[in-house]
Amino acid sequence: MRIAVLGVGTVGRAVLELLAETDHTAVAVADSDSAAVDEADAGLDLDRVLSQKEYRDRVGDREPAEVLDAEYDVLIEATPTTLGDAQPGFSHVERALARDRHVVLANKGPVAQRYGDLRALEAESEGRVLFEATVGGTIPVLSTIQDFDGQITTVRGVLNGTTNFILSRMATEGLGYEHILAEAQDLGVAEADPSFDVQGTDTALKCVILANRLHEATTTLEDAEVEGIIDLPGEALDLARRGGQTVRLVGEVTADGAVSVGPRLVSEHGTLAVSGTANVVELQTERAGPLTLGGRGGGPETASAVLADLERIRRETR
Amino acid sequence: MRIAVLGVGTVGRAVLELLAETDHTAVAVADSDSAAVDEADAGLDLDRVLSQKEYRDRVGDREPAEVLDAEYDVLIEATPTTLGDAQPGFSHVERALARDRHVVLANKGPVAQRYGDLRALEAESEGRVLFEATVGGTIPVLSTIQDFDGQITTVRGVLNGTTNFILSRMATEGLGYEHILAEAQDLGVAEADPSFDVQGTDTALKCVILANRLHEATTTLEDAEVEGIIDLPGEALDLARRGGQTVRLVGEVTADGAVSVGPRLVSEHGTLAVSGTANVVELQTERAGPLTLGGRGGGPETASAVLADLERIRRETR
Repeated sequence: MRIAVLGVGTVGRAVLELLAETDHTAVAVADSDSAAVDEADAGLDLDRVLSQKEYRDRVGDREPAEVLDAEYDVLIEATPTTLGDAQPGFSHVERALARDRHVVLANKGPVAQRYGDLRALEAESEGRVLFEATVGGTIPVLSTIQDFDGQITTVRGVLNGTTNFILSRMATEGLGYEHILAEAQDLGVAEADPSFDVQGTDTALKCVILANRLHEATTTLEDAEVEGIIDLPGEALDLARRGGQTVRLVGEVTADGAVSVGPRLVSEHGTLAVSGTANVVELQTERAGPLTLGGRGGGPETASAVLADLERIRRETR
Repeated sequence: MRIAVLGVGTVGRAVLELLAETDHTAVAVADSDSAAVDEADAGLDLDRVLSQKEYRDRVGDREPAEVLDAEYDVLIEATPTTLGDAQPGFSHVERALARDRHVVLANKGPVAQRYGDLRALEAESEGRVLFEATVGGTIPVLSTIQDFDGQITTVRGVLNGTTNFILSRMATEGLGYEHILAEAQDLGVAEADPSFDVQGTDTALKCVILANRLHEATTTLEDAEVEGIIDLPGEALDLARRGGQTVRLVGEVTADGAVSVGPRLVSEHGTLAVSGTANVVELQTERAGPLTLGGRGGGPETASAVLADLERIRRETR
């Protein structure tokens, strides 16, 4: 299929690397202030685009907006997640659907904050919107929810690598939050401004998306009950450990669609006690017990979920 | 969709129970020597079919073969797995495909023993063959392999509940194989003739199916290297435990498609150390780390995988 990519951050870059190895054709790529558009109808040379990005910090010499008018079949929207009205991501999706093109989202904003609007636009379009990459890195959680149509009742998961790292280190080193955060920032595991992760916003957005998909609801971040890990005392982890437990930032979607996120005690050897960049999701089914899906978060992993969505679109629109 | 069901064993029965709660219409059901066929075009009353099965040990007063001629969209083949030429399951699939109908298999025979023949028939037909229920109960392992088109390199898993139960009990009770087997038979966890499970055949068939799907190969049981648990001394489990490990019957598919099954040491708190009816599969991806999928085996769980296949067919042939 002919692919356009918006956004060349960690995920976008990994998507381009993976795309280069498939039989898809990249026809347009944009970062925040430049674009490369295929004019020879031969497909873009993605190695060239990636090296331009690396050495000139631009992907080409065209305007980003030109990508939206390119002749693509699927738009991959991998610009940064924004809250509120989820712009400009939402309008990118809107323009693609208005042209009856498919969209694969890595940007969480449109599905977390404007799910109802998105589904309404999709219903009017020949194009479809998939968004497996918005939750849980490589884990195929949304497609599993879809396949188990109506059979899944609740979801619980550990979905944020930065908080995982901090909580694991706090437990093993017996050090407080501030100290470990500084270490995580030095290692590049935590961002300079880590609030999106450590205040639970990232996990909450993912759970809102799960709730929306599970119940075809229009939950937003504002409906979620969210507590981060910044006030968690080191002693809590000591105490947990002596009881054979540990603490993780757990997100939950209940059977009635309520979303909550907060530090929770989990069994030390249990399913949810993952560490590092590992993500895990537990789906409860009505009749078939729990399903546990684990995999890594991170750029290449999230990009692999984008590619899996392309595969689904190819198969389902054949 | 209009559904025909062949086979009313543990899985077939659970399928009928689940179907009753969906918007699918059951038009024909057969066990080994009777059938119920919908004549009023109103759909079968599945509660009635199930109670006939329970009290009369027949599902109706028609001949099983009549089901194959019924006006269905999807045939669910849930007759017992047979080896060799996989008959009569294979001919059921053949007849459905010849009529351009879809098939959902719970019977492992046709996909483990005659994968090439099956795909050749499917290529000539408008009908599709799905078989998620043949491996790992409720776990969506085959659809994940499909979505990650070519990105999965190897698979390892614990896929047989009976051997899981026996190995867990041997480890905790410190008793030998024969003793625990007798207990498992008393509890109904192991069959009177448990050889299919304890000799590794069941796990091997599942791995052969994974290998075939992964590589579009035509591996059969005869190509697999299979060792069961019957010669495993109780002392091996003691020894494992003292090293923080335990033993599970692990099936593997390597990157070159080779299949092996045998008792393996696994870390006591690791992913593969599942117990009871839990199944687990580890998929290695080329670029996105490992994916771990866990869920239960058993009748209702396997039936839920059949229903998920129906959902996929509905979506992909819309």
